[in-house]
Amino acid sequence: MRVADLIRQKREGAEITPEQINVLIEGYTRGEIPDYQVSALLMAIVWRGMTHSETAALTDAMLRSGHTLDLSDLPGKKVDKHSTGGVGDKTSLIIAPIVAAGGLVVPMISGRGLGHTGGTLDKLESIPGFNVNLSLADFRRVLGKCGCALIGATAEIAPADKKIYALRDVTATVESPALICASIMSKKLAEGIDALVLDVKTGSGAFLKSEKEAVGLAELMVETGKRMGKRVMALITDMDQPLGRTAGNAMEVAESIDILNGEGPADLRELCLELSAWMFYLGERVASLDEGKRLAADQITSGRAIIRLQNGDDGVVDHPERLTKAQYTAEVTSPVNGYVQITDCEKLGRACVALGAGRNTKEDAIDPAVGLVFHRKRGDVVRQGEVLCTIHYNSPERLDDARRLIAASFQITRDAPKPQPLVRRVIGAPGANAK
Amino acid sequence: MRVADLIRQKREGAEITPEQINVLIEGYTRGEIPDYQVSALLMAIVWRGMTHSETAALTDAMLRSGHTLDLSDLPGKKVDKHSTGGVGDKTSLIIAPIVAAGGLVVPMISGRGLGHTGGTLDKLESIPGFNVNLSLADFRRVLGKCGCALIGATAEIAPADKKIYALRDVTATVESPALICASIMSKKLAEGIDALVLDVKTGSGAFLKSEKEAVGLAELMVETGKRMGKRVMALITDMDQPLGRTAGNAMEVAESIDILNGEGPADLRELCLELSAWMFYLGERVASLDEGKRLAADQITSGRAIIRLQNGDDGVVDHPERLTKAQYTAEVTSPVNGYVQITDCEKLGRACVALGAGRNTKEDAIDPAVGLVFHRKRGDVVRQGEVLCTIHYNSPERLDDARRLIAASFQITRDAPKPQPLVRRVIGAPGANAK
Repeated sequence: MRVADLIRQKREGAEITPEQINVLIEGYTRGEIPDYQVSALLMAIVWRGMTHSETAALTDAMLRSGHTLDLSDLPGKKVDKHSTGGVGDKTSLIIAPIVAAGGLVVPMISGRGLGHTGGTLDKLESIPGFNVNLSLADFRRVLGKCGCALIGATAEIAPADKKIYALRDVTATVESPALICASIMSKKLAEGIDALVLDVKTGSGAFLKSEKEAVGLAELMVETGKRMGKRVMALITDMDQPLGRTAGNAMEVAESIDILNGEGPADLRELCLELSAWMFYLGERVASLDEGKRLAADQITSGRAIIRLQNGDDGVVDHPERLTKAQYTAEVTSPVNGYVQITDCEKLGRACVALGAGRNTKEDAIDPAVGLVFHRKRGDVVRQGEVLCTIHYNSPERLDDARRLIAASFQITRDAPKPQPLVRRVIGAPGANAK
Repeated sequence: MRVADLIRQKREGAEITPEQINVLIEGYTRGEIPDYQVSALLMAIVWRGMTHSETAALTDAMLRSGHTLDLSDLPGKKVDKHSTGGVGDKTSLIIAPIVAAGGLVVPMISGRGLGHTGGTLDKLESIPGFNVNLSLADFRRVLGKCGCALIGATAEIAPADKKIYALRDVTATVESPALICASIMSKKLAEGIDALVLDVKTGSGAFLKSEKEAVGLAELMVETGKRMGKRVMALITDMDQPLGRTAGNAMEVAESIDILNGEGPADLRELCLELSAWMFYLGERVASLDEGKRLAADQITSGRAIIRLQNGDDGVVDHPERLTKAQYTAEVTSPVNGYVQITDCEKLGRACVALGAGRNTKEDAIDPAVGLVFHRKRGDVVRQGEVLCTIHYNSPERLDDARRLIAASFQITRDAPKPQPLVRRVIGAPGANAK
């Protein structure tokens, strides 16, 4: 196979075969095909797209570029959840212990913050001692003991994805549904799972702003997973405003503990129950979504076991004040009376990054303490001078940038904004008793 | 400047600025910007195209990546011709001495055969001793003595083009009008010329099969040259059949000598006079195209001086039999009575390559002796059994491939094909007395 011919084929909009994709990914992983040919091909894929069959073949080839976990010796179905990322999205921290307590195995390989969005690993590391860098052997041990484990991707999992992702990042070829799908699904399917629930975010705080794009990606991922013999479905959920009341690493851990203690904000609790219910349903633990929701509500549990097994200080469950806190706070108040509208949720994520909760470059260190508390959300009534948002910060020189972004994100209107459902659509549900 | 941002800009169809293009080409030439970013950008350019202003900026940046010749110490205007390549196109060998004899300076930097087309350098090297690898100092010396010189591109000329061309070749990004234009024009304008006549071939034996594509490229190159302060125009000329009677390196040299001796086929002579006339006109040597044609006809000259100055055996001018000849010949005859039609001229070029007149890979050696003689051309009457084409070959095992390609190219029809003009269009002529 001449790689230039393969690139030309895709450039002209023709389909490339699974065999060609295999040769390409194997050659690239082994370092025999140079970056410059792959980057030209990636741009041709951004241009021409990929069919479902090409996307499945790419996912499969990337998956097989490394190790795949075989968890068949652990009793129970293995089910995971993946979110495409947003502001204040801490559901993984809550769902993993709930679904494990309900009898399924949750082998969760997670990521770090990307752009304006937070990352599960960064959040977990704000728990003193918590180790996300387990070996695959330790990952399996924790899974066996408490039913869930949360780690970062290891070098053995989908190495082709690591090379391709690094190349996409510097060649402006990130935004392709087929490439996004193959990257996510190759890593998730390497976990040895039976089923996967996808939480595809849409709205101003998501990567895919339009619902149409989100639905397209969701359908592609569901179809790809099904072609590879897995039970996969997706929820399209709202990211026009932050999820829950906080954004920022330690603050989100504290909020997650609130939910696991039976408290916390309603939207976050609702989405966690919904996602958990679908995981129970796909994992064949329940016969309907309603039964799944009841089971999830019953399993609200402390998460203590997993924190302890991954070397974290489980004292934070009873004493969240042990989590690190920022030195200073500042308030953003409403300039007028009216209803709260959030016009640009991404700016709230960027305000967190500006404070140090995320990274501007790969080398930046995370400040686990800083973040935002949202006192008013979309549709709430607010009076002039009342607090919309509290900024928790450590570096006074960073405050102004964050404040500017937050002020630009909130808008106070005379009329109430139209209510929006948290779950906008369900894609690929296998005949469930959907609400 | 982040290169990834520049790539994204082009990917989204936005214009990139001359400053961005300069930083890119300088960084790439110095090896600071990696191949994989440039290849992604090249694919985005194939996708989105470039504006005239972007193309001019790219040409200018590539031109300035190396040395440009300053020939201002030589008296007379410096004028060159460039052809986009075809089958049997030997006009450079004829035009250079004619235009030099007419009082202009012709500093011609030429190429080798590419794909199914022949190359001026390969043809010249079939003259015993002829050296196309002159230093720039020797190039200037030959120019000063005989008014023309023909060499290959040196390492000093447009090094960015060399790097980019090699990358395009292996990343399926050759076929972009903007990239083709910048590659040609950056090298040609580095010659220190005042004016340039472009011979853009169209038809089944050209790279750009459709006249529309040829006109588009011609307009882009004319516009780019004008933006850079040069007098540039283009002829769109027929390549639906070979030019002249021969294709093959030594055979084309012999045919060129025929023309310079006042003989040879009419179509080749006509195009050479036409191109020379435009060169005289753009070089301000004559006031009209007709005057240019008369001057060109008067200057039909032996070309002896340039052969001698570039160390070639100028005895070939009087004794063309000194040129190497193939061992064997074979004939392709007409199966029926009728009119000659050539349906796929590229196949005739590929037959030459099959015989060894061109290269299949960069490493192949050229056989200067082999080639084709065309006894009948489009519209000629032929009777069953009469010879259409003679194959001159050295390797009997290569004969069948060539014969198959030739037979597929010629077609004998009952009705005469519609005559086609040799010069189809004139692009960018600066108010000349065009015919």
